Amino acid sequence: MNNFLQKAAKYIEKKTKIKTYPKVIEDIISAAKTTGNFWQIVRISQRPIPVVAETLKLLGKEKFVELSNNEVKVIDENIEKLNKISPYRSEIICAECDGTGINLKSIGIYDDFLEIRKKAPKPIQEYDQGNITAESTVRRVALMRARGDITGKKIIVLGDDDLVGIALGLTKLPESVLVLDIDKRLIEFTNSIAKEKGIPVKAEVFDLRNPLPKEIKAKFDTFVTDPPEAKKPFIIFIQKGIWSLKGEGSTGYIGMTLIDSSVPKWAELQNIIIKSGGAITDIIRDFNKYDIWDYHQKTLAWKLAPVKSPLDSIWYTSAMVRIEIVKKTKVQNKKLKLKDMYIDNESTTT
Amino acid sequence: MNNFLQKAAKYIEKKTKIKTYPKVIEDIISAAKTTGNFWQIVRISQRPIPVVAETLKLLGKEKFVELSNNEVKVIDENIEKLNKISPYRSEIICAECDGTGINLKSIGIYDDFLEIRKKAPKPIQEYDQGNITAESTVRRVALMRARGDITGKKIIVLGDDDLVGIALGLTKLPESVLVLDIDKRLIEFTNSIAKEKGIPVKAEVFDLRNPLPKEIKAKFDTFVTDPPEAKKPFIIFIQKGIWSLKGEGSTGYIGMTLIDSSVPKWAELQNIIIKSGGAITDIIRDFNKYDIWDYHQKTLAWKLAPVKSPLDSIWYTSAMVRIEIVKKTKVQNKKLKLKDMYIDNESTTT
Repeated sequence: MNNFLQKAAKYIEKKTKIKTYPKVIEDIISAAKTTGNFWQIVRISQRPIPVVAETLKLLGKEKFVELSNNEVKVIDENIEKLNKISPYRSEIICAECDGTGINLKSIGIYDDFLEIRKKAPKPIQEYDQGNITAESTVRRVALMRARGDITGKKIIVLGDDDLVGIALGLTKLPESVLVLDIDKRLIEFTNSIAKEKGIPVKAEVFDLRNPLPKEIKAKFDTFVTDPPEAKKPFIIFIQKGIWSLKGEGSTGYIGMTLIDSSVPKWAELQNIIIKSGGAITDIIRDFNKYDIWDYHQKTLAWKLAPVKSPLDSIWYTSAMVRIEIVKKTKVQNKKLKLKDMYIDNESTTT
Repeated sequence: MNNFLQKAAKYIEKKTKIKTYPKVIEDIISAAKTTGNFWQIVRISQRPIPVVAETLKLLGKEKFVELSNNEVKVIDENIEKLNKISPYRSEIICAECDGTGINLKSIGIYDDFLEIRKKAPKPIQEYDQGNITAESTVRRVALMRARGDITGKKIIVLGDDDLVGIALGLTKLPESVLVLDIDKRLIEFTNSIAKEKGIPVKAEVFDLRNPLPKEIKAKFDTFVTDPPEAKKPFIIFIQKGIWSLKGEGSTGYIGMTLIDSSVPKWAELQNIIIKSGGAITDIIRDFNKYDIWDYHQKTLAWKLAPVKSPLDSIWYTSAMVRIEIVKKTKVQNKKLKLKDMYIDNESTTT
């Protein structure tokens, strides 16, 4: 029955125009054996939404699963005829650190950050915002602390709906933090907190589609960004980040998903990182957990979902990728055209 | 005093012929502020041993640290004149899972594996053996389980002093496991356990410097290996691994260190992975912990150590790197010449 997986992969690839192979189908089946909730199947399989959606529809047509209004149900006697595939076991993931390897309370800013975050402006779709949880922001900062990327450093945050800038400031360790974001509400909030707390954080309204201001070229030790994942904007974002860095030994923190990107696309994006002078030093999967966002039902992802499962727990996650610059290369500081910004065939949640 | 770090980096690079930049020196200083034990400074800084050794000698000469017979001692009033550098804080790492994100007891083979491992042959330098801890082997297998790379899979283990083959077998999930290793003692041990436990593991004596047998070309879903890290042998090992895989969607688990490799070398090795058709899906730093090995005092690393600190706790670690094949490429199944095998200027522990 291996044959079915191969045929299915070919069919899905043709249908979605996203590279697909039998292992992808297997991972989706494994997830469907674990949970009936579509969004959790996406989270567990870590495959792009269009691929998961089309695969489940195909499995439904072939009577391997049953698609009800809001649930996927595996049809045991049929699915057992396929390859031996185990359900996912979430207990493999360390419950203490939520699989991140990072101790939340270790850097002493969590309680303070939690209080501040309650007062922050809510995310809006206009700016492609989706918040990672407070825990994820604090763990991201803790990881940066563990890698020696905060103390005495000049840090730039390119887009900051997650308040990473404030969290960095709360450690009192950076030399300076510059936050650039298009959302005036966020900028004002960040600056007011910076003032109130006396932390070295400055925020400026800036549309990151534009080239960065000339005066910040080669000024920073570290950048932090969660770039859009269509290939063109990804390149432009990453290269801008690297353009703002001092050079060798500077580092970058990049949120990257396998929900709006396929693994084959990751290979391309990784190639871009290496070509731009970076080495990848960490890829911690499922590191950043996103709160369920309000505008979800307006997204393409929602439309694609073959069953409208309730959005009742965290499902969208991204990997934390750290890079270290090992080589000076020519990187560009380019304008990103609006039409290239969000949608490619893999990105569906924005 | 930034200037000192820059000069130091240049000097160390010239001396060791390993690419070095100020951040490297900073990381070593950060580690030296944390512990006086040379081996722990290596572990914390995650920089190649020759670089750490030469840096500490230079810091000693410049009176930033004092080198005694077995300890490095920071000279506070001098080192504070350098950049603001924080000591490392080990409490950031999750104690429950040892920073791996993986729950040790989750896959139910730990106790059994521990018993078996007690009876296994001890590592010997002749074969470049160093054992990862039982916990690391079991966590590696748990990670593979979480990624859907065990159930129903054909797995090849290229070099197996860590008994990964047996641990995989104990899960009772793989279709088959083939272990290749040069060490007859290990092969006999693995086969005897396989027989005793009735698990689908077969082990064969094989010198991995030779091309793999033609009949195993494109036969496996997953490989596991801890390759030598000099560039040439790394390429040959990884390409052999990929050569043995079925193709797209097949995966590989590679142990990679930053103790016998620099971050700039990682960029080159990552480029090789991508060129060979792989995407990197996980890099979990400090995942594999090595037992302190008996022959340590005969290695180049020991000779390089500027202070002969006691080897009293785990210090050598490697990252767990997972790759997924996303593209068929021509990979080679080549012979590795003995003279290329171990030593380059970065690899010193073998």
